[in-house]
Order: sequence, then C-alpha cells, then structure tokens
Amino acid sequence: MTNLSILGTGNMGQAIAAVAAKGGHSVQQLGENDTNTPVTGDIVVLAVPYPAISDVLAKRGDQFAGKIIVDITNPLNFETFDSLVVPADSSAAAEIAAALPQSRVLKAFNTTFAGTLAAGTVGPLTTTVLIAGDDADAKATLADVVTSGGLNAMDAGALKRARELEAAGFLQLTLAAAEKVSWTGGFGVIA
Amino acid sequence: MTNLSILGTGNMGQAIAAVAAKGGHSVQQLGENDTNTPVTGDIVVLAVPYPAISDVLAKRGDQFAGKIIVDITNPLNFETFDSLVVPADSSAAAEIAAALPQSRVLKAFNTTFAGTLAAGTVGPLTTTVLIAGDDADAKATLADVVTSGGLNAMDAGALKRARELEAAGFLQLTLAAAEKVSWTGGFGVIA
Repeated sequence: MTNLSILGTGNMGQAIAAVAAKGGHSVQQLGENDTNTPVTGDIVVLAVPYPAISDVLAKRGDQFAGKIIVDITNPLNFETFDSLVVPADSSAAAEIAAALPQSRVLKAFNTTFAGTLAAGTVGPLTTTVLIAGDDADAKATLADVVTSGGLNAMDAGALKRARELEAAGFLQLTLAAAEKVSWTGGFGVIA
Repeated sequence: MTNLSILGTGNMGQAIAAVAAKGGHSVQQLGENDTNTPVTGDIVVLAVPYPAISDVLAKRGDQFAGKIIVDITNPLNFETFDSLVVPADSSAAAEIAAALPQSRVLKAFNTTFAGTLAAGTVGPLTTTVLIAGDDADAKATLADVVTSGGLNAMDAGALKRARELEAAGFLQLTLAAAEKVSWTGGFGVIA
C-alpha cells in the first residue's frame, strides 16, 4: 500500500483519488482551505491548475523533500487556448523539478482527461497513464498505484519527455475545446 | 477524384498511396530516380525523411506553387532518438511553409505509423489522421482523400499546431523504439 497526498479537489484530483482508493492505497486529499495541514503521503500529486503551482511550491516545498511529486498540469495559456506558457524548450515538470531538488518529480496524468480516469476507459480501450521521470523506482511506485486501480501505466521515458507529454496534452485539450473529441475521449494508447 | 503526387517510395509513401488508391484517387508515386519527372498532382505528399526535405524543396520548390503540400515528417535526431532537430518553438511544417509561400502546406500522417495506415486500424480503432493547416479548403481536400480511403480524418487546427503534432509523433516513436508500443499500435483517437 502506498500513501498518497493529493493537493486539489477538482475533477482531476477526485479522479486520481478514486483510482488510488480503488487500488487499496490510502489517500489524503487536501483543498484550498487545508494549507496548514502537512502532506503525509509518500507520493504527492499536484492536482492544481498550473497557475497555482508556484504558490504551492512556495508554501509546501520544504514538505516535499524526499517524496515523489507528481505534476499533472497542462500549462496552457487559458486566455488564448493557443499556446503553452512555459518556454518552448522546457516544461512545467522541468520547472517543478528545478524548484524541488530534494524530490523525485514525475510527469503523469496530463494526457488523460478526468472522465477517462474515472471511467477507466477511453472508448474501447483501457485508459493508459503515461509517466515520465528520471527515477525508475518512483515511476514504478506510481505505476503500481495506477495499475492496481485498474488502469494501464506506461513508462514514457525521462523527465525531459514531459515536454512532449505537455505538447500532447495541449493538443488533446485543443481538440476537445474545438469539439473534435469529447471530454470522455481523446488519445488512447494501443500497446 | 483528386490527383496526388507522392514523393517517396518507403513504407509511409506506399501506405499513403494505398489509402488514396483505395479511395479512387489517382496517384503518381515518384522515387529517388524520378527527379526529372515533374509532379502532376494537386496534392503533393512529401513522404521522404526530414533530412531529404531541403533537397526536395531546392529541386522541386517551383513545381509546388499553387499546390497542396503535405508534410508527414518527424524531424528526429535519429542518432540520439532523444530530441527533434527543428527549433523548439517551430516545426518542420513551419519551415516548409516558409520555404513555399506559393503553396498551401499541411501537416498530416506524422502521428500514424505506416502499419496503422496500411491496416486502417490501430488496435480496435479506425486509424485517425490528424491534419493541421491554415487553409480550410486544403484540409478538406486532404480529409476527403483520407476518409474515402477508409480512415478517419480530424482537423487539428492551424499549421502552428504542427509543433504539437511533431511532439506527439516524436513521443510515439520513442515509445515504439523502447518497445512500449508496437509499430502497429501507438496513439489512437477516440472522438
């Protein structure tokens, strides 16, 4: 059993909490009013919108030392829906990893809509969570949470691949915003 | 019926030619030894590896005026398989469009492996060709070729989205190279 702390009570935070609970893991879910409650999980999922990340890091960065930190963000420019706000040669995950040198940072869940995490399926496929990171043990720990919760997990490579995961997540969001795919559809992964 | 010229006789060129032929379109397929044969198609598919593109543009750029040019490349660093060789804030498609101001350039087919174009399916899904470009008529013309050949076509937005399509194509190639997905699998699109 793994102990998870999930920061954020929106639809992504709720869906990830449900996956973890289904797999028999313990979940501490913290919302905006819980800023004084320390995180207790070995895995901390940052299920907050990208604009809130810097505040979370400022307030809780010290608590994250030694933990696995999971960045799920898609750092879109939400005014234009036409670009990311991170530098083209970087990623939100790279920024977070740079701010948390004592943590093992993973990128995951940004290419799966909340609806496909909750359903466990995307169309006829089992939902696949792509996980990028530089620490194999951390990736395996998160993958176990994902698979025990009934989803597929796939190692997407080193943390530098977060750039491509964020591009894919952005692309998928633009397709949903343009009503080319539904919020229960999008990209599936066929092994 | 649309007339297509396909430059390149590799597995991608062959697969795209087969899709077009299945849809009842005429296909002129040209290989390396056909450099003196002018292209006759209204759609020209550049089914050559990215490193060969500059040579094609130098030799045939004048012939491409007024035509729909389809860039299918994934501009990987094939030595490292760890990055793209185009600038982070650009794309191969953007470079090609800049070189061909008299053409309507589309990005397409770079997120579908040859095997999924040939089979028409990726796992249980019909293969979907994502098409980005700035000219709606050009996108509709190519989409008609794709759908008449039995595949799905999806408008992925403006040509600037080629950056994300190339990132997604790169990601998919790294997953296949790492044997996480097969060359007949990869990303599927669920509407």
